[in-house]
Amino acid sequence: MTPGASSSRSPAPPEDRDAPVIAVDCNGADLGPGEVAAGAAIAAGRGARVLLFGPAAELGEPSPGVEIVDAPVSIAKAEDPVAAVRSTPQASIVRAAQAVAEGRAQALVCAGGTGAALAAGTFNIKRARGIYRPALAIPLPVPHHPVTLLDVGANAETRREHMVQFAFMGAALARTVLGVQRPRVGLLSNGEEATRGSALVLETYAELHERAGAGIDAFEFIGNVEGGDVVSGRADVIVTDGFTGNVALKLMEGVSQTMLGAVREAAMSSRRAKLGGALLRGALRGFRDEIDPEASGGAYLLGLRRLGVVPHGRFTRAGFAQAILRAERGAREDIVAQTHDALEQAGALRRSPVSAPDASLRQTG
Amino acid sequence: MTPGASSSRSPAPPEDRDAPVIAVDCNGADLGPGEVAAGAAIAAGRGARVLLFGPAAELGEPSPGVEIVDAPVSIAKAEDPVAAVRSTPQASIVRAAQAVAEGRAQALVCAGGTGAALAAGTFNIKRARGIYRPALAIPLPVPHHPVTLLDVGANAETRREHMVQFAFMGAALARTVLGVQRPRVGLLSNGEEATRGSALVLETYAELHERAGAGIDAFEFIGNVEGGDVVSGRADVIVTDGFTGNVALKLMEGVSQTMLGAVREAAMSSRRAKLGGALLRGALRGFRDEIDPEASGGAYLLGLRRLGVVPHGRFTRAGFAQAILRAERGAREDIVAQTHDALEQAGALRRSPVSAPDASLRQTG
Repeated sequence: MTPGASSSRSPAPPEDRDAPVIAVDCNGADLGPGEVAAGAAIAAGRGARVLLFGPAAELGEPSPGVEIVDAPVSIAKAEDPVAAVRSTPQASIVRAAQAVAEGRAQALVCAGGTGAALAAGTFNIKRARGIYRPALAIPLPVPHHPVTLLDVGANAETRREHMVQFAFMGAALARTVLGVQRPRVGLLSNGEEATRGSALVLETYAELHERAGAGIDAFEFIGNVEGGDVVSGRADVIVTDGFTGNVALKLMEGVSQTMLGAVREAAMSSRRAKLGGALLRGALRGFRDEIDPEASGGAYLLGLRRLGVVPHGRFTRAGFAQAILRAERGAREDIVAQTHDALEQAGALRRSPVSAPDASLRQTG
Repeated sequence: MTPGASSSRSPAPPEDRDAPVIAVDCNGADLGPGEVAAGAAIAAGRGARVLLFGPAAELGEPSPGVEIVDAPVSIAKAEDPVAAVRSTPQASIVRAAQAVAEGRAQALVCAGGTGAALAAGTFNIKRARGIYRPALAIPLPVPHHPVTLLDVGANAETRREHMVQFAFMGAALARTVLGVQRPRVGLLSNGEEATRGSALVLETYAELHERAGAGIDAFEFIGNVEGGDVVSGRADVIVTDGFTGNVALKLMEGVSQTMLGAVREAAMSSRRAKLGGALLRGALRGFRDEIDPEASGGAYLLGLRRLGVVPHGRFTRAGFAQAILRAERGAREDIVAQTHDALEQAGALRRSPVSAPDASLRQTG
């Protein structure tokens, strides 16, 4: 493929003609856009149909099932993603989001960071009908007990009705994309008792508890959970505000890295320790696989009219492939419709007129 | 010592006649009250003077420098510590707190949990003059980078003026008890930029930033820090609200235990791995020592008229000894007066009439 080439569609295998198309922004990956394209090729090999946005010159020849759109402009490193999205319509993430908004693709995958994905998604794909706020959800690779935490940073200020919707959104993700039949949803608090929590948590608890009493089909509400329950396996989904969720996520990453670094350091400290580390390496591999963040595809952007997936910029092709396959699964299972139906059944949709689907052109949520 | 014996004072060595007396509640320790008494003996051997409250029959013979007060009633496991403190004046923690309130001791150490210590301390020792709210501070044993986090759970709802005082209280702890000359104080947020944070964080940032511009002697304000900075070494003290702090503390404990457990599990999974684990064990010992929570004595109850220290119930005698020695250091260096002076100099004392020094009956100065 030569620079400037804009499209070179290879038809998907006949059996996948109805498969959702996934719009993928290649810019922003640490290993370069080519690594994302390589991930797309892997996903396409498993039947995915991909629309790839990025610098065509760096993306190589398209595989069957992959279409390349030359979109070399990147805003992945922009300090202010909202401003960058507004001012750069030719940016790859904006074009990818537009493809989803216009129905040329059914889900968005963005290697360029959550800020850009959130801004481009909100402006172009827009909030789903009846949703107050989009949220970022992270499936955490906890050994033996994977758990999805949301919101991890889309909203610094959160209200009760947002939190209640996050519970439904997180449950729909766990069910449709992660394969948990009836997710157990907990509310992150500073104690398990119903009386513990910030004002926001107390209000949210009261509403979810009342709804659970009346019957919630979409998930099982297990009440308050504590910080330690992020790794205890008590919950499949943990709901919190974007401030606490962001602090918790970064703390968890920091503690994990510090502990692994300390073990690694110890295993380099003497010949004896080096030998011990070498003998232990094989046994630790299973653990490393289990805590591999690439396995779940990245962060999920929920609450828009289509699903967004944001693999981490440091992922390899395997992680990008996984992100694309998860996005496809979410689109196939129609996570947006499932979320909407569950919220409608529970009477938890936003009712104000401004939430009508065509009410806003450039709303910021 | 026989049951019912009430006191058997052994005089402190002459050179320690002016040393502060530390009131210690022995009830609530996992290893039993005798383990706390053993810790007191170790501390007394290093010059501490201790007033020990607990079941005399289980505390053994008092060492020199240790006086035993028979107080067998324990409320350490009470579900509602506030109610238990009110209804049980004979409880060991209440009697220990009263000894501090009446000036028979100059600091409180409580093996029976933070809830009981907070309730008994607040009711008996009372808030220090000009302080809005007591706070719980935890020195976290991060390898190479110890950091003190507060509030970790004394207050689920926190206001700006509380947070500002927490910064001064945490800095005074780091200086007087932990030996950090000019602590770097950070504000926990969902991003480093001054524009990031909940409404509470934005308000607190603005006030601390303004104060820092005018000059703060007590500490260096380094602005917002993220969850990962709890382990990065950027700050000596990290200020947050009691809700976020509690979630962060429990999450950190959970992640650490999960990681250590996974490494241990891997090291038991085969003969080869067992041999590797055995060879690595010595090298990991230094790391284990560094992350030993007993080394810093436990949690600190700040904002009362005297210092409180709450060692974890699972501590051994070494940890209880450390708690007593840290409490003595805090009393000697007069952390309460240092906090007050710094807040007064900064004009950050509470001015409302209810904070006047004669508002309560059991004040100790």
